[in-house]
Amino acid sequence: MLLTPKEEVYHRIGRLQKELNSANVDGFLILQNVNLFYFSGTMQNSVMFVPRKGEPLLLVKRSLTRAQIESPLANIVPYTHLTELPHALSTLLEKPLTKLYLELDVLPARLYLWLKELFSGVEFVNGSEPVRKLRMIKSRFEIEQMQKAAEIARAVYSEIPSLIQPGMREIDLSAELEARFRKMGHQGLVRAHRWDLELYYGAVISGANMSYPVPFEGPDGGMGLSAAVPQGAGEKPIQEGEPIMVDMVVGYNGYMIDKTRVYALGRLPEDLLKAHRFALEVQKEMTELLRPGNSSRRIYQTVMKKVEQSPYRDYFMGYGDNKVRFVAHGIGCEIDELPLIAEKPDLELQPGMTLAVEPKIFFPQKGGVGIENTWLITEDRPKKLTDFPDDLHFL
Amino acid sequence: MLLTPKEEVYHRIGRLQKELNSANVDGFLILQNVNLFYFSGTMQNSVMFVPRKGEPLLLVKRSLTRAQIESPLANIVPYTHLTELPHALSTLLEKPLTKLYLELDVLPARLYLWLKELFSGVEFVNGSEPVRKLRMIKSRFEIEQMQKAAEIARAVYSEIPSLIQPGMREIDLSAELEARFRKMGHQGLVRAHRWDLELYYGAVISGANMSYPVPFEGPDGGMGLSAAVPQGAGEKPIQEGEPIMVDMVVGYNGYMIDKTRVYALGRLPEDLLKAHRFALEVQKEMTELLRPGNSSRRIYQTVMKKVEQSPYRDYFMGYGDNKVRFVAHGIGCEIDELPLIAEKPDLELQPGMTLAVEPKIFFPQKGGVGIENTWLITEDRPKKLTDFPDDLHFL
Repeated sequence: MLLTPKEEVYHRIGRLQKELNSANVDGFLILQNVNLFYFSGTMQNSVMFVPRKGEPLLLVKRSLTRAQIESPLANIVPYTHLTELPHALSTLLEKPLTKLYLELDVLPARLYLWLKELFSGVEFVNGSEPVRKLRMIKSRFEIEQMQKAAEIARAVYSEIPSLIQPGMREIDLSAELEARFRKMGHQGLVRAHRWDLELYYGAVISGANMSYPVPFEGPDGGMGLSAAVPQGAGEKPIQEGEPIMVDMVVGYNGYMIDKTRVYALGRLPEDLLKAHRFALEVQKEMTELLRPGNSSRRIYQTVMKKVEQSPYRDYFMGYGDNKVRFVAHGIGCEIDELPLIAEKPDLELQPGMTLAVEPKIFFPQKGGVGIENTWLITEDRPKKLTDFPDDLHFL
Repeated sequence: MLLTPKEEVYHRIGRLQKELNSANVDGFLILQNVNLFYFSGTMQNSVMFVPRKGEPLLLVKRSLTRAQIESPLANIVPYTHLTELPHALSTLLEKPLTKLYLELDVLPARLYLWLKELFSGVEFVNGSEPVRKLRMIKSRFEIEQMQKAAEIARAVYSEIPSLIQPGMREIDLSAELEARFRKMGHQGLVRAHRWDLELYYGAVISGANMSYPVPFEGPDGGMGLSAAVPQGAGEKPIQEGEPIMVDMVVGYNGYMIDKTRVYALGRLPEDLLKAHRFALEVQKEMTELLRPGNSSRRIYQTVMKKVEQSPYRDYFMGYGDNKVRFVAHGIGCEIDELPLIAEKPDLELQPGMTLAVEPKIFFPQKGGVGIENTWLITEDRPKKLTDFPDDLHFL
C-alpha cells in the first residue's frame, strides 16, 4: 500500500503552521476525514492537533494500530473520549490556548457546541477556508496519484466503444464501467466538501435524460434510479442517433480526476456537432487563459462573453433548472475544491492547482455534448492529466 | 419511478406534528437530505418547514421542477437565498417563532451559526434524535422497499458460488457483485447518520485480512485499497481453506438492508465451524428475544452473558482494535439507525423496527465467521427480510 511519504506530510504541516502564524491562531484541531488524511497520512477515527510550532499530536480512538502503520507522525497516542483533549493539547503549548482553527464548514453543530463548552473561553475560527486554500496547490506526490487515477480512466474509457449496445440501459453501461474502474483500483467513494452533496461515480446519461432536472450542483441532468438518488444513470435505454455522455470521477489513493466524453451509436444531428465544436473552442481558449497570475473571475467573464454572443446562451453549462454558474471546478481529495472558474471566489491561478474544465451544452430534448478534462496549472501552458481524444466518439 | 405515496408522506408529517406538540416546539426546519426525502418524498436542494399544525412548506432552490414532479406536498415554492426563510415561515404561523427543531447532529457548524443569527431570539433544539425515533418505526411501504432490496441481495448472493475463483482478489469479487447489484437497481450510495462515517457497499474480505484494523465502527476488518479508503476489500488473493466474508448493504429506493454470508473454497478448520455454529446459536436466541416490549439493553446483556461464558469472549464482534459494543443496529434510510442492541441507548422494541443482527467472531490470523440478517420486529416472532440459507457455503 502506497503511503504518503514522511517529508510530504511534514511539508504540509509546515505550510499549515505558516498559515497559523500569519493568522495569529494557536493551532488547528482537525476532525474531518479528508483533512486528517491530508495532514497525518492516515484516515482514522481520530483528532489531530497542529500547534503553531513544534510537533503535532494525533489522538486516535480507532484504529491506533492502523494509525501507527500508516502515519509518519512522531506523536500518535490513544484516546477514548474528547474530554481528554484540553489536557492533551495543553502539554504541547507554552501558553494557554486562546484561538483555535476548527473545520466549521463541516463540523456538525452538536459537536461544535460540545467543543465550545469543553474549551470554554477559547475563540473558534473557521479553519476550513484556509485549509482549502492550502490544499488547492498540489505537490508532485499528489499529482502522481491524480495521474494514476487518469490512467485508470483512460484504460476504462478505451473500452467504452466495445461496451455500448443499442437498447442497453444507462445503468447497465454505468455498472460495466464501475466494475472495470474498481478492478483497476478505483476507491469507490467520491468525496465532496459541501454538506450533503452526494455523488456516485458521476453520470452515464443519454438523449433527453441528459437534461432531466437534478439537485446536484453540476450541469449534467439525469433521472437516476429513484427519488432517493435523483441524478445520473437511470433505466432509459440507449438509442441510436442520440448523444451518450460518460462523465465519471475516478479516485485513486484519495485523489480524484473528472472526465467527460460523448459517444453516439450512428451519427448525431448537425446542430449537436456544431455545439460540440463550440465546447472544444471554449476549452481551447481556456487553456490559453489557465496560466499563473490570471484571475479566475476574469477567465469566467471571458468565457461567458463568448457564450453570450453564441447561440448557446440558454444551453451552456446546463439547461433550465440544471444551469450552473461555473465552467471549471478544483478537484483533488474532494470534487468541489478551489479554485472555481466562476464569478466568485476570485482567486489568482498558481502552479499546482488542478481543475476539471467542463464546457458543456445541453438541449432540452436532444441531450447534450461537450468535454471535460482535468488540468494541472503549470508555469506555462496547463497540462492535460486526462489525456484522451476530445472528439465525439461515433460507434 | 416509484414515488412515496401522498398518504404516506402526510402520515409521517402527522407523526412529526404530534411530536412537535408534545415537545412544545413551534416547528421543524429540515435541511438534511435523508429527512427531506422522508418528509417530502423528494430529495432536492431545499428546506422544509413543518409547523406544529397545518400544511408544511417546501422551499426549493434546485430543482423546483423535480420537486413538483416527485413530492405530493401542497406547498412547494422556489427560493434563492436562506435569508428568505424567516418571512416565509412567519406566514405559516399564528404567533412569532420561539422554539425550533433543527438537525443539530448533522447540520454544519457554520450553517448553524448563520441560521442562529438569521433567527435571532429563536431557541434551537436538536430535532435529530426525535426524528431518528420516528424513523425507526417503518411503515408497510418502507418494508416493501427493504424487501425489494433483500430480493436484489438474494439474487446476487445466489451467484457468489459461481463467481469465486481461487487466486482472485477480494476487490475483483467485490467489483463483480457491485456490478450485479447495480444492474438490479442498487442505488450505489450507502448513507450513514454519523458524521464522516463512510461506507462503500460493505466488505468482501478473506482470511487474515478479515481482522486487519479499520476505523469504521463495525466488527469487520479489511485493508481496503489504500489509506484513503481504509476498510473492506483489498488486493489480497482469495485462497482455498480460508473463510470469505461477503457483508454487503443493498439500497433500493432509499431503503437499505444489510446481509453477511461466509463462503469457503474447500473445507474450513473445525474451530471456525464451531465458531460459526455459536454465531447461529446467538442469532437463534436473539430471534426469541426480538419481541415488542423487550429492552434493547437487556437483550444485549443476555447475549454478552452467553459470550462471556464461551471461548469467544475476545473474538466476538471484532478482534483487537475492531471490537465493537453492539450486536445489532437499526437500518433503513441510514445504516446506523435506531435501535441498537447495545448497552445504550436503552429502547423498548416495537413492531415496525428493522434491525441488522450480526453475531460474528473474528480470529487474528484465520479470519472470521458468523451471520448477518436484517429483521423486522412484528407482534410475534421477528421476520427475516434477508431470507437465504445461514450456513457456511462451501464451494
